[in-house]
Order: sequence, then C-alpha cells, then structure tokens
Amino acid sequence: MKIYTKTGDKGQTSLIGGTRVPKFHLRIECYGTVDELNSYVGLIQCQDIDIHAKQVLKEIQDRLFTIGASLAADPEKSKMKIPDLNLTDITLLEEEMDKMNEILPELKHFVLPGGNTVVSYCHIARCICRRAERLTVHLATESFVDDKVTIYLNRLSDYLFVLARKLGFDDKTDESIWLPRL
Amino acid sequence: MKIYTKTGDKGQTSLIGGTRVPKFHLRIECYGTVDELNSYVGLIQCQDIDIHAKQVLKEIQDRLFTIGASLAADPEKSKMKIPDLNLTDITLLEEEMDKMNEILPELKHFVLPGGNTVVSYCHIARCICRRAERLTVHLATESFVDDKVTIYLNRLSDYLFVLARKLGFDDKTDESIWLPRL
Amino acid sequence: MKIYTKTGDKGQTSLIGGTRVPKFHLRIECYGTVDELNSYVGLIQCQDIDIHAKQVLKEIQDRLFTIGASLAADPEKSKMKIPDLNLTDITLLEEEMDKMNEILPELKHFVLPGGNTVVSYCHIARCICRRAERLTVHLATESFVDDKVTIYLNRLSDYLFVLARKLGFDDKTDESIWLPRL
Ligand code: B12
Ligand code: B12
Ligand code: B12
Ligand SMILES: C[C@H]1O[C@@H](n2cnc3c(N)ncnc32)[C@H](O)[C@@H]1O
Ligand SMILES: C[C@H]1O[C@@H](n2cnc3c(N)ncnc32)[C@H](O)[C@@H]1O
Ligand SMILES: C[C@H]1O[C@@H](n2cnc3c(N)ncnc32)[C@H](O)[C@@H]1O
Ligand SMILES: [Mg+2]
Ligand SMILES: [Mg+2]
Ligand SMILES: [Mg+2]
Repeated sequence: MKIYTKTGDKGQTSLIGGTRVPKFHLRIECYGTVDELNSYVGLIQCQDIDIHAKQVLKEIQDRLFTIGASLAADPEKSKMKIPDLNLTDITLLEEEMDKMNEILPELKHFVLPGGNTVVSYCHIARCICRRAERLTVHLATESFVDDKVTIYLNRLSDYLFVLARKLGFDDKTDESIWLPRL
Repeated sequence: MKIYTKTGDKGQTSLIGGTRVPKFHLRIECYGTVDELNSYVGLIQCQDIDIHAKQVLKEIQDRLFTIGASLAADPEKSKMKIPDLNLTDITLLEEEMDKMNEILPELKHFVLPGGNTVVSYCHIARCICRRAERLTVHLATESFVDDKVTIYLNRLSDYLFVLARKLGFDDKTDESIWLPRL
Repeated sequence: MKIYTKTGDKGQTSLIGGTRVPKFHLRIECYGTVDELNSYVGLIQCQDIDIHAKQVLKEIQDRLFTIGASLAADPEKSKMKIPDLNLTDITLLEEEMDKMNEILPELKHFVLPGGNTVVSYCHIARCICRRAERLTVHLATESFVDDKVTIYLNRLSDYLFVLARKLGFDDKTDESIWLPRL
C-alpha cells in the first residue's frame, strides 16, 4: 500500500472517530508536536549512551504514541479502544530522576545547555517537550484532555533535564552554570 | 555589503512587492518555517547517505526556495517574475517513494522514530515539514496560496518518512514498531 | 532538592514578580523559544570549531539567559534586580560579523543551507532564532519588551548566518547558491 493517500490534500484530516478538522486545529498541532518530540527522543535513544537510559527512552517513545492516540481521539465521539496512559508511567519518570539525582552535584543555578552532542540533544528535546506541554495545556482549556497527558509532558521535560546532566556527568563533561552579570 | 541591514529592527519587514507587514504575520511564519525545514533537509543531505538521495535532497532544497519565494510574494501586488512550482515537482516525490517502497517491507503499524542518527534527522525533518504544512494550510484560508505549495509539503513529509525507512534499511538498522498496549 | 516541583501541573506558572499566568501565554512562548535557541547554540558551541567562535557562542548563551530573565519578569510588578542587556552586546555581534565577512566571498544569492553538519546546525539555529524574534516582536505589540531584546535576536540570526558561511569556509566546504529556475 502507498504511504501517500492524498486524502489530506485539501487541508483537512480525520480524528480517530472520523470527525474532519482543518490541519491547523489546535488538537493536530498538539499531536504533531508530540511527534516532533518523539523524533528527538529517538535521536537521543540511538546515541552511544548507557543501556538503561536507552531502555527508558524506548518506553518513553511508546508512551508518546499512547499520548498521540489520546490526543488524536475525538473526545465527543470516539468509542474506539485506545491504549491508556497510567499514573505509573509518570512515577516511572520520577523514580528515574531520583536515581540519577543521587550521583549528581546539587544545582543552585541554571546550566548553560551543552557540553557535548548528546547532552545538547537532550536540552533541545527538553525544550520541544515544553512546547508540546504549552500547546496541550492550551487545548485543555478548550476541549477534553486527559490530565495525565499534561502531567506526563511536564515530568518528561524535567526527566530530559536530569538526563542531560547525567549523560554529561558520565562523559566527564564540565557543567557551566549561569551566573547573572548584575 | 553588510548582511545586517537593520531595516527590520522595528519589527516589520517587506514582502516581495514592497508591502510592509509585521514579522509575526502568518505569511512570514510560513516561509520562516519552510526555511527551518530547508535547514534540516540540508543536514540530512550532507550526511553519508546514498548519492541518489543526496541529489534528490538538493532538488528539494531548490524547490523549498521556490516555495519560499511564492509564499513571500504579496498576492495582491507582486508582478515580479518568481520561479514556478510545477506538478512534476510533486510527481517526482511520488516516484521516488514508489521506488524506495519496492525494497521495503510492508508496514501495518507505526514505527518508533529513530534507529540511527540520519534516520532520526529524517523523522525530525518530517515533523517540521508537517508543521510548515499546517501553517500554510492555515494561511490558505485567509489569503492566496498556490495549491501546489501545500500539496508539495504534504507529499514531502511522506517522502521523508519513506526516506527514513530506506536509510535505516540500507544501514541494516532494526525497525521498531509500535504495538499499542491495550 | 528535587527538580520536579509539581507546581506547574495545573497548567499555570509564575513570572518573576509572582504573577500567575497560563503556560501558553505569549510571554512564556517567547522565553521557551529562547531556551530552545539556547540549546541549539549549545550544540554548535560544543562541536569541533575554532576556539574564538566557541568563546563568542558561550557569551551568546549567557546573554540568552539575560534575555530569558528579561522576558520572564512581569513588567507591571517586578522590582527584582535582573541583569541588563547592553548595546555593546549587540555591537559585539556586528563586529564579529564584520571580521568574518572580510575573508568570505561576497554573496549575491541565497545559499542552500548545509554543506557539513555544523554548518547545518548553524542554519537550524538561525531559523529558531528568527522564530524567537517573531514571537518577541509579537509580544512587544501587547506588553513591554526591551527593544534591545528584539534587536539582539535580529542581529543574532544574521550572526548565525555569517558563522555558518565562515565554518563552511574553514572546512573548505563548497557553498551552493540558489539560482531561481525562471
Ligand atoms: C493520529 C495519527 C498519527 C499521529 C499520532 C499517532 C499516535 N498514536 O501517536 C502521528 C502524527 C504520529 C502520525 C504520523 C504518521 N502517520 Co498517521 N495517523 C493517525 C490516525 C489519525 C490515527 C492513528 C492512531 O493512533 N490510532 C489509534 C491506534 C491505537 O489504533 P489503530 O488505528 O489500530 O492504529 C494502528 C494503525 O492506524 C496503524 N497503521 C496501520 N497501518 C499503517 C500503515 C502505516 C504506513 C502507518 C504509519 C501506520 C499504520 O498502526 C497503529 C498501531 O498499531 C490515522 C488515521 C485514522 N483516522 O485512523 C493516521 C494514519 C495511520 N497515518 C498515516 C500516515 C501515512 C502517517 C505518517 C507516515 C505521516 C507522515 N508523513 O509523517 C506518520 C508515520 C509516523 C510513524 N512514526 O510511523 C496513514 C497511513 C496510510 C497507510 N495505510 O499507509 C493514516 C491511515 C492516515 C491516512 N489516511 O493517510 N499519525
Ligand atoms: C523571502 C526572503 C527570504 C526567505 C525566503 C527566500 C526564498 N525564496 O525562499 C528566507 C526566510 C529563506 C530568507 C532568508 C534569508 N534572508 Co532573505 N529575503 C527575502 C526577500 C523578502 C525576498 C527574496 C526572494 O525570494 N525574492 C524572489 C527571487 C526569485 O528574486 P530576487 O529578489 O531576485 O532574489 C534574489 C535576491 O534577493 C537574492 N540576494 C541578492 N543579494 C543577496 C544577498 C544576500 C546576503 C542574500 C542572502 C540573498 C541575496 O538572491 C535571490 C535569488 O537569486 C528579500 C527582500 C526583498 N523584499 O526582496 C530578503 C533578503 C534578500 N534577505 C536578506 C537576508 C539578510 C537573509 C538572511 C541572511 C537572514 C538571516 N539572518 O537568516 C537569510 C539567508 C538565507 C540563505 N539560505 O541564504 C537580505 C539580504 C541583504 C543583503 N543584500 O545583504 C534581504 C535583501 C532583506 C533585507 N533587506 O534585509 N529570506
Ligand atoms: C524564567 C525561568 C526559566 C527560563 C528562563 C531563565 C532565564 N533567565 O533565561 C527557562 C525557560 C530557561 C527555565 C528553564 C528551566 N527551569 Co526555570 N525558572 C524560571 C523562573 C520563572 C525565573 C528564573 C530567573 O531567570 N530569575 C532571574 C534571575 C536573575 O534571578 P534568580 O531568581 O536569582 O535566578 C536564579 C535561580 O532562579 C536559579 N536557580 C536556583 N536554584 C535553582 C535550581 C535549579 C534546578 C535551576 C535550574 C535553577 C535554579 O538560578 C538563577 C541564576 O543564578 C524560576 C521561578 C521563579 N519565579 O523564580 C524558574 C525555576 C528556577 N526553574 C526551574 C526549573 C526546574 C527549570 C528547568 C529544569 C525546567 C525544565 N525541565 O526544562 C529548566 C532548567 C534550564 C537550565 N538550562 O538550567 C525551577 C527550579 C526548581 C528547583 N529549585 O529545583 C524554578 C524555581 C521554577 C519552579 N518552581 O519549578 N526557567
Ligand atoms: C522554569 C520555568 O519555566 C516556565 N515554564 C513552565 N512550564 C513551561 C513550558 N511548558 N514552557 C516554557 N516555560 C515553562 C515557568 O516559568 C517555570 O518557572
Ligand atoms: C497521520 C495523521 O497525521 C495527521 N496529519 C495530517 N497532516 C498533518 C500535519 N501537517 N501535521 C500534523 N498532523 C497531520 C492526520 O490525522 C493523519 O491521519
Ligand atoms: C530575509 C527576509 O526574511 C524575512 N524576515 C525578517 N525577519 C524574519 C523573522 N524573524 N522570521 C522570518 N522571516 C523574517 C523578511 O522578509 C526579510 O526580508
Ligand atoms: Mg498524508
Ligand atoms: Mg535582518
Ligand atoms: Mg516544572
């Protein structure tokens, strides 16, 4: 089967449930940005990093598809079975952060994003995650969004921040802090 | 001549044709995002990939400038000769997909974006292309946009998806599919 | 202390000064995008490029935090001392461009973004910088924004363009120009 169906050439698309909406609908913007985030998570996942982080990032990619399906379902109509996001998906991120934080020096300042390539990728992914969060929080003021989706995205940007620090630490990369010029 | 002309320091800029618009005008947002996409296509183009894909990506970069000029032209005023986007530019993308698809295993599920670095870049570019498409479809509801521009962007994101799979295949990278946890 | 404070789980956040705003407020969108830009600048900064550019990019990262603080401060309320962006921060970018331009061939056409990986990163950063500029110019029509912030972002995208050309030149990468197909 061909990937290009041409069904979107008139600028509309279908939610799960069948409702047609314009492609610039906030709901599409949300799952489109989650897709962008997922691509960045994939970029980090395939770098030469510790195997545990690799596994967690795969989990996260799976969960971003769950979130994508949840955002793509028309809240008014969809009776289709879509996979659920669980509270344990959120606590997993928290536990991973707690573990990584044990070995990291305490932070009292912002860090300049960067140090090495994969650390930089984490910071970029963190920012795209926050962009996805902003859009999803916006959508939630107009339409139904599962609370767990916005909370997951919130925690994921914190996870990506801690992961950036941890991968820099593993690589013995210096952390530069921002000291405001006052 | 200096690159920095300071003419945009007050927050306005000129369309082709001379009309002044604020920089956050949807039309500027559109060609600014096509520029971002073009930069990502350039990143893929200069990686170590097969020579044929490299040539096609150069063509695509050229065509994104054609699209940029088309979007930057004031539809009310511009009499300037700008280059045309052709239907054959779209069919080229389709033919390229058809050729790549011949060697690829059939897909019945989403794939987790990633696998190796250049495959990940393709997925990121695919998502930025879709962001550009959303904006351009939006602009088309308010102002004139050549249909071929939105269709080209639609097909280009599909092309980038198939290219991602093809470059992963060349590199013998495993494809992970998403199996919803139901 | 834990990084994840959960204070943002309801979709609101605090400006400097304490005012609560929704996370999709244009002001948050602005500093969120400056953060994304900063992450890209960090990616360029840690590549194998000339040491002088590395130092300038560190400076720029510092200045993007200054801009972040300026954008995050509630203009109605904040009496907190935040660091100042200076006119000399802007002229530094201009002087750096002038120096790099001395060795570069004159341009009469657009260049296809790309050539090598770090040049491509510069082009992507340039485009994100322009996205940040568009948002900030928008915010300035609704609320107070220091003029130096928008001018700095404007000049920074030009700096990133010239840096892209300069790093390509150092690496003896061919520059492809866009010749419109008329
Ligand atoms: C939401 C959605 C997306 C979202 C989010 C998905 C998510 N869960 O996060 C995003 C934006 C990521 C997306 C991306 C793409 N999508 Co999409 N998507 C949909 C949509 C609207 C719902 C899918 C869904 O999540 N269903 C919920 C799950 C739980 O149930 P399900 O329907 O059984 O889902 C399965 C199938 O839809 C699917 N599937 C079956 N056959 C095929 C074939 C292909 C090629 C793909 C990619 C998937 C696929 O795999 C799912 C999981 O097992 C459908 C259209 C529709 N209304 O159903 C299109 C649809 C599946 N997508 C499609 C395409 C082409 C793509 C992209 C290639 C587009 C692009 N150029 O980027 C990418 C592929 C991304 C990837 N990594 O594989 C096509 C597939 C056409 C085909 N049969 O070949 C569809 C049918 C839309 C269409 N008519 O054109 N998509
Ligand atoms: C639309 C536009 C863009 C768009 C889209 C372009 C496209 N076609 O896709 C985007 C967003 C990509 C863009 C980016 C940039 N642009 Co521009 N752009 C324009 C604009 C408004 C129209 C250009 C156009 O497409 N014309 C249609 C073509 C068919 O006709 P043309 O006008 O004969 O086009 C030729 C010249 O404009 C041009 N050209 C001539 N001299 C120079 C010098 C430089 C340095 C460049 C980059 C181009 C250039 O090359 C074109 C093709 O041959 C002009 C201003 C204007 N109103 O004309 C600025 C303009 C050409 N851009 C300019 C600049 C500085 C840039 C950037 C460096 C900004 C930045 N910091 O990112 C980048 C460079 C990108 C690159 N890869 O080279 C300046 C050039 C100043 C100078 N003479 O040195 C101009 C004149 C605007 C200005 N007054 O500041 N731009
Ligand atoms: C604006 C802002 C941002 C902006 C812009 C900052 C800028 N200047 O460009 C951006 C978007 C970049 C940002 C990002 C993050 N931020 Co922030 N940010 C703020 C905010 C609202 C103001 C900070 C500021 O610039 N103040 C002006 C400066 C001049 O004065 P200052 O307040 O003395 O600033 C110092 C401290 O705030 C700070 N600091 C003190 N302790 C800690 C601990 C941590 C972990 C961090 C990152 C910073 C930090 O360092 C600053 C400079 O010395 C504060 C909350 C608030 N209302 O104060 C949160 C805050 C500092 N951020 C926070 C967090 C968690 C983050 C992120 C990790 C979020 C994420 N997941 O991406 C990242 C880290 C980025 C990095 N590179 O280090 C938390 C820190 C929690 C903690 N104590 O552990 C705060 C307190 C918000 C909260 N309640 O959750 N942030
Ligand atoms: C660290 C700071 O970032 C801001 N903040 C919280 N959530 C987001 C988001 N999704 N995008 C951008 N900024 C955000 C808040 O102001 C917080 O205090
Ligand atoms: C694969 C699915 O992606 C959605 N879709 C179609 N076009 C875009 C776009 N430009 N951006 C984001 N999502 C899009 C549709 O819902 C389609 O079915
Ligand atoms: C080079 C051209 O880019 C446009 N331009 C100026 N500032 C921005 C921005 N922040 N984002 C996108 N496009 C911009 C103007 O049309 C200018 O002439
Ligand atoms: Mg399609
Ligand atoms: Mg300018
Ligand atoms: Mg938080």
